[in-house]
Amino acid sequence: MANEVKVLGAWPSPFVMRPRIALNLKSVEYDFIEETMNPKSELLLKSNPVHKKIPVLLHNDKPVCESNVIVQYIDEAFSSGSSILPSDPYDRAIHRFWAAYVDDKWFPNMMAASRAETPEAKAAAADQLKEGLLLLEEAFVKLSNGKPFFGGDNIGLLDIALGSYLGWVRVSEKMNNAKLIDESTTPSLVAWADKFCAHEAVKGVMPETDKLAEFAKVMMAKRQAAAAST
Amino acid sequence: MANEVKVLGAWPSPFVMRPRIALNLKSVEYDFIEETMNPKSELLLKSNPVHKKIPVLLHNDKPVCESNVIVQYIDEAFSSGSSILPSDPYDRAIHRFWAAYVDDKWFPNMMAASRAETPEAKAAAADQLKEGLLLLEEAFVKLSNGKPFFGGDNIGLLDIALGSYLGWVRVSEKMNNAKLIDESTTPSLVAWADKFCAHEAVKGVMPETDKLAEFAKVMMAKRQAAAAST
Repeated sequence: MANEVKVLGAWPSPFVMRPRIALNLKSVEYDFIEETMNPKSELLLKSNPVHKKIPVLLHNDKPVCESNVIVQYIDEAFSSGSSILPSDPYDRAIHRFWAAYVDDKWFPNMMAASRAETPEAKAAAADQLKEGLLLLEEAFVKLSNGKPFFGGDNIGLLDIALGSYLGWVRVSEKMNNAKLIDESTTPSLVAWADKFCAHEAVKGVMPETDKLAEFAKVMMAKRQAAAAST
Repeated sequence: MANEVKVLGAWPSPFVMRPRIALNLKSVEYDFIEETMNPKSELLLKSNPVHKKIPVLLHNDKPVCESNVIVQYIDEAFSSGSSILPSDPYDRAIHRFWAAYVDDKWFPNMMAASRAETPEAKAAAADQLKEGLLLLEEAFVKLSNGKPFFGGDNIGLLDIALGSYLGWVRVSEKMNNAKLIDESTTPSLVAWADKFCAHEAVKGVMPETDKLAEFAKVMMAKRQAAAAST
């Protein structure tokens, strides 16, 4: 059977980057279908009727939803390229644990920091974010074992989970004129982020910071206009 | 190497039931260590320094945290018993998708329904909960393919994810004197719930409804006392 692979998504979404990076790691060709979201396409509504969210992977027209579920599916369905999850069950569990941490704790803290309205709330959210980065720095040192990625020599599940947020990290750094991932407290993560963004599987799908910052400004203006009209 | 397996947890927690059911399915003997939580034990703080939460699985003293991560670890680390995840990558993805839905959407709706303070908020949360159960009924019919469990002939990841909440579903039904999972709208889930609770791997760890309801009353009284004193 031919492998017809499509990713339904939008370029600024970190979650949409995940299946794209995973497919690139596996050297699987795919069509990228840009979802305009307003209104949501028939294809999206039909493929992800529960959440109606991107990304959706369509593998021979069969949909898979939820970015981390898709990445694991890609790892299991395509044997080409390097493995995205480690082979040892304990190592797999540790990578899954940290990938969940990034989505369930770290990213919500980043959103809270960007949306905080008072200087005190902003500072509190920034502290939590920094604390999370220190934990991830420590995890990196343990898991990478002197190699360039969380996954060792190759980009793995946790690299993809955290790395997909780097575009937005850089936008936040640019807007606030302050480093989030900085050399003095998290030197390993600084080196990791550079290597991740320069990787062949990543560089074509990681949005340019300036373009993403423009998109962010438009989004923020829309949110403020909506808030002012209610 | 000997397999020394411990689960650090507390009997009323649905999340703690998950590794216990998984270990029972694999016929792996384990010690259950009751965590009193107040104060948190040294063992918990050392084993799960990031979240400081139960359950923790200790396999030859190596900790694994986060209930769904632990269940997948158990499936991969112990080849005895039936498989908890399906063998086909697409089926695995579908089971992971629904297990995430249960934790990320359905259970938060159940919590919202139990905590809603006005009749309107309660009704809105109950509607969302019912809608979720209809989706799960539909998923059950597709996935079980006429067999007793989401996992087919055997209890699988999604059975464990949803089934672990059944104790609390029954407490909620008892307290509100109304069926949440009812025969008229979700007949397959009613039959599934009965079979799940009666399964050899489950019945010893599923809390009795009366005992759990007593625990819930104590917790609610504590919460109300805390709210009144602030």
